Amino acid sequence: MLRKQVVLWADLAGTVVFAIEGASAAIHAGLDLLGVLVLSFMVALGGGVIRDLLIGAAPPSAIRDWRYPVLAFAAGLFTFLLHTQVEAVPAMVLTTLDAAGLALFAVAGAEKALDFEINPFIATLMGTITGCGGGVMRDMLLTRIPMVLVANIYASAALLGAAVLVIGRRLGCPPAVAAVLGGVVCFVLRVAAVRFNWQLPRVI
Amino acid sequence: MLRKQVVLWADLAGTVVFAIEGASAAIHAGLDLLGVLVLSFMVALGGGVIRDLLIGAAPPSAIRDWRYPVLAFAAGLFTFLLHTQVEAVPAMVLTTLDAAGLALFAVAGAEKALDFEINPFIATLMGTITGCGGGVMRDMLLTRIPMVLVANIYASAALLGAAVLVIGRRLGCPPAVAAVLGGVVCFVLRVAAVRFNWQLPRVI
Amino acid sequence: MLRKQVVLWADLAGTVVFAIEGASAAIHAGLDLLGVLVLSFMVALGGGVIRDLLIGAAPPSAIRDWRYPVLAFAAGLFTFLLHTQVEAVPAMVLTTLDAAGLALFAVAGAEKALDFEINPFIATLMGTITGCGGGVMRDMLLTRIPMVLVANIYASAALLGAAVLVIGRRLGCPPAVAAVLGGVVCFVLRVAAVRFNWQLPRVI
Repeated sequence: MLRKQVVLWADLAGTVVFAIEGASAAIHAGLDLLGVLVLSFMVALGGGVIRDLLIGAAPPSAIRDWRYPVLAFAAGLFTFLLHTQVEAVPAMVLTTLDAAGLALFAVAGAEKALDFEINPFIATLMGTITGCGGGVMRDMLLTRIPMVLVANIYASAALLGAAVLVIGRRLGCPPAVAAVLGGVVCFVLRVAAVRFNWQLPRVI
Repeated sequence: MLRKQVVLWADLAGTVVFAIEGASAAIHAGLDLLGVLVLSFMVALGGGVIRDLLIGAAPPSAIRDWRYPVLAFAAGLFTFLLHTQVEAVPAMVLTTLDAAGLALFAVAGAEKALDFEINPFIATLMGTITGCGGGVMRDMLLTRIPMVLVANIYASAALLGAAVLVIGRRLGCPPAVAAVLGGVVCFVLRVAAVRFNWQLPRVI
Repeated sequence: MLRKQVVLWADLAGTVVFAIEGASAAIHAGLDLLGVLVLSFMVALGGGVIRDLLIGAAPPSAIRDWRYPVLAFAAGLFTFLLHTQVEAVPAMVLTTLDAAGLALFAVAGAEKALDFEINPFIATLMGTITGCGGGVMRDMLLTRIPMVLVANIYASAALLGAAVLVIGRRLGCPPAVAAVLGGVVCFVLRVAAVRFNWQLPRVI
């Protein structure tokens, strides 16, 4: 029961962070108010919607529970109205909040997939998709090659965090411990990757 | 029973209008016959398919009922063969037909979501997605930023029309009255927005 | 039972071919290792995932059965490590393998849709989507207009192959005969279209 509450609050916190980022990207791309709200929704909830469709949890929780879209739209509207103040937030704060949102979503996504009796390997992928799916949809709507496919370690951090949770559960860790461990790994790896500019190898 | 018939015919009429528009966009983008048929299908039925997946109505009606794809493909083929004549249709006629299609889809989409016991707020979003989803898929396939996110009042008209229907139903209106009211609001708002070049606010 | 085995092996073979192609496209686009793996997954399994969501077979087999993603990732990693050798494979060999993959997926996709009691006309479309969906997702992720909508006969070959299978089954052919016939038609048409540069008509 307590665990459910924690997952819910983590989920809602991640939703707010990602919705603000989606709204920011939309404002920079010159979209109008509606475009800003759509991107808030997509970035905040797109990853979870894809995960839920894939694991057979239709309707997705973002559709079933009105608190998610209301929160995403509210955060988007807030960003639209206060964009000057949001712009003034230092980049490192945004990166840290984004890493926290990524960690929350990766862990919550893998957790939910396990609850739906999805194979552990695939539950790890589902955590990654939950964390990164919204950003991919943002980039596709703005006709950019998805940042996570090109740029520094982002999806990899989500993947590793989800893997730590899944492996921890397999080894008999209490669920809360596995979740915290996975989240911390994802968060630390992401922040360190930005700080030290780590990159994955590429051919060309 | 009569209501079901009306919804069905409205849906089929909207399908034809949107399929012709999809085919036109494909022809302008230099796609071949198959690309024209694919865009006819996507623009006409894409919004409804996304709605049905999200509300848990799988398989979507566009897949379950062969009349929808056949109609979309027929309208696309017709546009391909008679493109010179279709091009000659005045822009205001096209805008009016498009606004009618948008109204039909927004109302039918919200109605169907309510039938699936989706929360009223989210049913409104589902109506909007039904009306606009096909156009978004068209723009993404043609690698353009979706028109509805940037341009004048379009998705907002669908949103308002769907909201009128949902609120009307909540206030105890007979379903047919709520649907007609919602459709008229969407249609009039869209046509007026084009006529007077209304825009939503944007930051930049 | 034997038939199930054959479909499974055909599916796995198609997965490997398409994953290698996806990885190649990702390497050429300058994506990093993770991007290469994502495109391997998407090209190999994206079409089947879309089909499964549309016919109501959630979770899709690519999510339910860990062998599919493991195989796609392994083929992607292999291509990443041995890209010089993969590049050296003559274009005609790649075209032939790709045509074989297309034929396998088109036939397996139509077959699965029929198993889910989808209308024959729509089962044909589902076969086409299974064959072409992954390539469309690749092009959208790389922000290109999907090749199948513009270029020479590709989706049309998948469509015809799937149609042959569906019609064959309708006329009472043994399933294996209908599948082989459909696959051969798709394969031969695709290879011939590349060899003789056949194109579908277009308006402009």
